[in-house]
Amino acid sequence: MDHAKFIVPPGQQIRLADYDTTYTGEFAKKKAAEQKLKDDIDQLADLQDKFYAQDNYSLLIILQAPDAAGKDGIIKHVMSGVNPQGCQVFSFKKPSSEELDHDFLWRCMIRLPERGRFGIFNRSYYEEVLVVRVHPGILDGQKLPPECKGPDVWQNRYEDINNFEKYLVRNGIIVLKFFLNLSREEQKKRFLARLDEPEKNWKFSTADSKERGYWDQYQTAYEDCFNHTSTEWAPWHIIPADNKWFTRTAVANIIVEKLKSLHLAYPVVDEAQQQELTAARTALMSE
Amino acid sequence: MDHAKFIVPPGQQIRLADYDTTYTGEFAKKKAAEQKLKDDIDQLADLQDKFYAQDNYSLLIILQAPDAAGKDGIIKHVMSGVNPQGCQVFSFKKPSSEELDHDFLWRCMIRLPERGRFGIFNRSYYEEVLVVRVHPGILDGQKLPPECKGPDVWQNRYEDINNFEKYLVRNGIIVLKFFLNLSREEQKKRFLARLDEPEKNWKFSTADSKERGYWDQYQTAYEDCFNHTSTEWAPWHIIPADNKWFTRTAVANIIVEKLKSLHLAYPVVDEAQQQELTAARTALMSE
Repeated sequence: MDHAKFIVPPGQQIRLADYDTTYTGEFAKKKAAEQKLKDDIDQLADLQDKFYAQDNYSLLIILQAPDAAGKDGIIKHVMSGVNPQGCQVFSFKKPSSEELDHDFLWRCMIRLPERGRFGIFNRSYYEEVLVVRVHPGILDGQKLPPECKGPDVWQNRYEDINNFEKYLVRNGIIVLKFFLNLSREEQKKRFLARLDEPEKNWKFSTADSKERGYWDQYQTAYEDCFNHTSTEWAPWHIIPADNKWFTRTAVANIIVEKLKSLHLAYPVVDEAQQQELTAARTALMSE
Repeated sequence: MDHAKFIVPPGQQIRLADYDTTYTGEFAKKKAAEQKLKDDIDQLADLQDKFYAQDNYSLLIILQAPDAAGKDGIIKHVMSGVNPQGCQVFSFKKPSSEELDHDFLWRCMIRLPERGRFGIFNRSYYEEVLVVRVHPGILDGQKLPPECKGPDVWQNRYEDINNFEKYLVRNGIIVLKFFLNLSREEQKKRFLARLDEPEKNWKFSTADSKERGYWDQYQTAYEDCFNHTSTEWAPWHIIPADNKWFTRTAVANIIVEKLKSLHLAYPVVDEAQQQELTAARTALMSE
């Protein structure tokens, strides 16, 4: 799969409209993509086992998307083969009063994955330059000193986020950022399905359909965000999201290829440890 | 008090040897300094009350120093007048295994002060460019991927710390950094006192006196650290520490002047709230 197609080139200006939401790459049909996904999930389980044993890196996966773009489905279908001992998922909804009492990165920082683990952020600190930007009233309501709410607030936040992610990468945390790029038409279909199918009713919220009214403002906020925070150390991937089966296959493959590039290996036992193991065996056998 | 004398000028190269550890400013005698400290402590209590009520800023005080320089004394004598509800102290010792499982800023980030509060870090993330630099074996033992331990690790950490503090300041967290500058001779006297006076014995540890053997390496690490991390937004203060009474007076005065510069005020009750208060009074009186 050609991942370069999905990456927002650092330092360049992209237009979201140029990214095809219906693209399915080399997969003309769902079935072939699902086989690829299955193979990658098997590989992912093996890679994660080594990742956990090696205990050097962490993997932070950030998912951002409009409602109904398939974030929950990615987590369920891509990560279900992974040992949950090595994988934590955090969903960031409206900040709590405790979270609002802190700087905006805080609630994410405290939930960063430990070494050897995967951490999945279902939404993230990027909300602070997306939903907060589309609804400026949220910023007004935050208890920041007035000089921290000036016109340069978005630019500052982009810079702070870039610096933060650079720090993470320098400390062995791999940052993979995915935007699930859904078309307005496909969102409408999925919302209607949530209304029509009783077992999907619980997923529908009137708040979501209200946010749909801000579609254009969100597209602008996403575009500006990607153009400022796609970096060499943590580029954005814009994943076509009108076909769920392709979205999942693409995300899984990007994760697998990234992990493969790390040349993970189980820790090698040195001679002294080997002697300890031999002694332990002897003791057990003589019981 | 002339605070400029203590500040490491951002972007300039200082030599620690040029800072007089015995300086006592305008105070020829202990008594006058203690009166000044008392006045400032009274002001500090008032200012903190407003700071807490206004609930916009946080104050992060970072204390770094050689052993026996008086960090604990600063906290005890300067902060004792302050309402503990608005003040949290964290001492960072040898990292725990949980802390080592994270990036190096993590254990400090999670303990950042909430809005309206003072947070005091007795040692801090600066240990990662001080003790870890003096004892490179500590870095070798950290479970970082090999490429994160290269020769640029200190330079990267300085940059990451500067960016992190810039982010804090942009989000309403004031960062005050103090180095208590103790002479080698005075440290010797204080260590001997800990050995000689039974009620001070508990403060003596052989590890401290072992660290004293690395005095010169620490001076170099401090100097390099201050020259790289004294910034416009979070400058270092080098406080003469051979006279405890002066150290305390200077630190208290710097904190007080910083708080005064914020023009803190109790929140003003608007007309609608005023009407609610009147209604509440009426209800209470008619009981």
